[in-house]
Amino acid sequence: MKEIFCGIDLGGTTVNIGLVTNNGDLIQQHKIPSGVIDGVDAVVDRIAKVVHNWQIQDDQLLIRAAGIGVAGLVDTHRGILREATNFPGWINVPIVTKLHSKLDCPVIVDNDANVAALGEYSFGAGKGYDHMMMVTLGTGVGAGLILNGQIYRGAYGAAGEFGHITIQKDGPVCGCGRRGCIEAFVGTNGLVRNVRQRLSSNMTSTLRTYNLDKLTPKDIYQEAVAGDELARLVFSDAGENLGYGLGSVVNLLNIQHIVIGGGVAEAGKFIIDSAQKILNEFALNNGDQSARIVKAKLGELAGIVGAASLAMALV
Amino acid sequence: MKEIFCGIDLGGTTVNIGLVTNNGDLIQQHKIPSGVIDGVDAVVDRIAKVVHNWQIQDDQLLIRAAGIGVAGLVDTHRGILREATNFPGWINVPIVTKLHSKLDCPVIVDNDANVAALGEYSFGAGKGYDHMMMVTLGTGVGAGLILNGQIYRGAYGAAGEFGHITIQKDGPVCGCGRRGCIEAFVGTNGLVRNVRQRLSSNMTSTLRTYNLDKLTPKDIYQEAVAGDELARLVFSDAGENLGYGLGSVVNLLNIQHIVIGGGVAEAGKFIIDSAQKILNEFALNNGDQSARIVKAKLGELAGIVGAASLAMALV
Repeated sequence: MKEIFCGIDLGGTTVNIGLVTNNGDLIQQHKIPSGVIDGVDAVVDRIAKVVHNWQIQDDQLLIRAAGIGVAGLVDTHRGILREATNFPGWINVPIVTKLHSKLDCPVIVDNDANVAALGEYSFGAGKGYDHMMMVTLGTGVGAGLILNGQIYRGAYGAAGEFGHITIQKDGPVCGCGRRGCIEAFVGTNGLVRNVRQRLSSNMTSTLRTYNLDKLTPKDIYQEAVAGDELARLVFSDAGENLGYGLGSVVNLLNIQHIVIGGGVAEAGKFIIDSAQKILNEFALNNGDQSARIVKAKLGELAGIVGAASLAMALV
Repeated sequence: MKEIFCGIDLGGTTVNIGLVTNNGDLIQQHKIPSGVIDGVDAVVDRIAKVVHNWQIQDDQLLIRAAGIGVAGLVDTHRGILREATNFPGWINVPIVTKLHSKLDCPVIVDNDANVAALGEYSFGAGKGYDHMMMVTLGTGVGAGLILNGQIYRGAYGAAGEFGHITIQKDGPVCGCGRRGCIEAFVGTNGLVRNVRQRLSSNMTSTLRTYNLDKLTPKDIYQEAVAGDELARLVFSDAGENLGYGLGSVVNLLNIQHIVIGGGVAEAGKFIIDSAQKILNEFALNNGDQSARIVKAKLGELAGIVGAASLAMALV
């Protein structure tokens, strides 16, 4: 018999809620605005209402457990959201207790990057790889680690800051204030800075027609797809820089597999090839097959499916 | 009642064998040449002879289990030494089976860096820190990781290559052939290269009297202790470069504690201060106490004590 789990992907603007079977199939999904400004109790009520509606529609529906992923610093063990940039005022929120009292099933919380990594590991592009990292490319660069087949959280739940590995100690300043982080090269600001630098050459590019102050990775991606050579070089540069960081992680952790997700990952084919090339050069060969970089499979559902996977471990 | 475990530290030139109680006290120790050229069976026989002599001296002696650390690529699960630079011809050696048949107790094998890290974690400078890394500074730069209170080995037992994290993608060439690895800055070659560079200035230094082709880290250390400013700067530079790499590890793995061991670690006070300074700048602050860098406590006994600690998990 299929068992049903609830997966909740709580972001700063949207909550994505779903019901997932124990083999990873999504059977219900609903998206609502998170409205974090109303406070945690209101948000929990809204989530519970969505779930209760499903229960009203199907009186046979038994939810075994629920998982929630939040973009912030989480103490999974104590069930607490410690702090999160996009949730102003939500400090040390006992999110598990609050959800449990409304959903009436076991609940578990984790960081969104960890949850997405678990989703890809359990039912997506990371299936079968007990040592893997999922990297999420967007405005910033985040990551979740699966080590020995489990989410690795670190001493205080803060593990996975792959974006703030240093690849060039005297490199460009990162949003975090340090120099030469991967994010400083591969995050939105890094991509746009590289567009400016490359435009200072004589190379022709449709990107010259854009207002660079408003340029997005999506713009660069669209031009790359349309054949713009400069746009493709910018992603290829980003891939190389990503590759140096991945080499460091593979050498330190001997992981086998890297899954790339997130908005910029749409530019996958332009990024992954050059990242894999650098990774092959920089990862030590210990007589083993080298680590492969692949695109994520679950897309924006990774959050729901991963949160549900997290819940599966509760029962 | 105290239980006795055997710890074996098998290096390319020397085997260090000891008996260790379950609270980490060394009660016997003996060092013999390894003579790896004679092959694994001869080496195992020599080790067994040392242990049997102790058993002859004390007929009450009961060894519960034995652990062995080897400088090479190890498959702990299968009990095999896969390959090792200093053990020519030792390919896929079933070291556990061979030792077990002579010692008549459960046996476990692991990489020497992992074993040293476990030793410092169990009974040395890493006690109480479930998320830590022990870095061994010598000709090269090695490391062992303790994550969630256990040795972390990675997919194929090759984890811990901290020395080959990239901190400067266009940096100096490393012994591994890649550029800008930590080892290229902090290993022996990196130290000597930095001495040459700094000597090209007008700075006075007793290191000018040395034959630089034969300069060792120990020479540099001795001059640093004697007050030579240039020698101190060389270690301080090494510490800074170490700090960038440690920052990457702390951000990726959220470890709390770093133990520095190995020959060059004798220069601890000149290295650790500058490493800690850079680490404090480069490690993200997630509202937690930041990771501390400390000197190893067990010295050359880390191998024996760590191997015995490994054995303790068998019973």
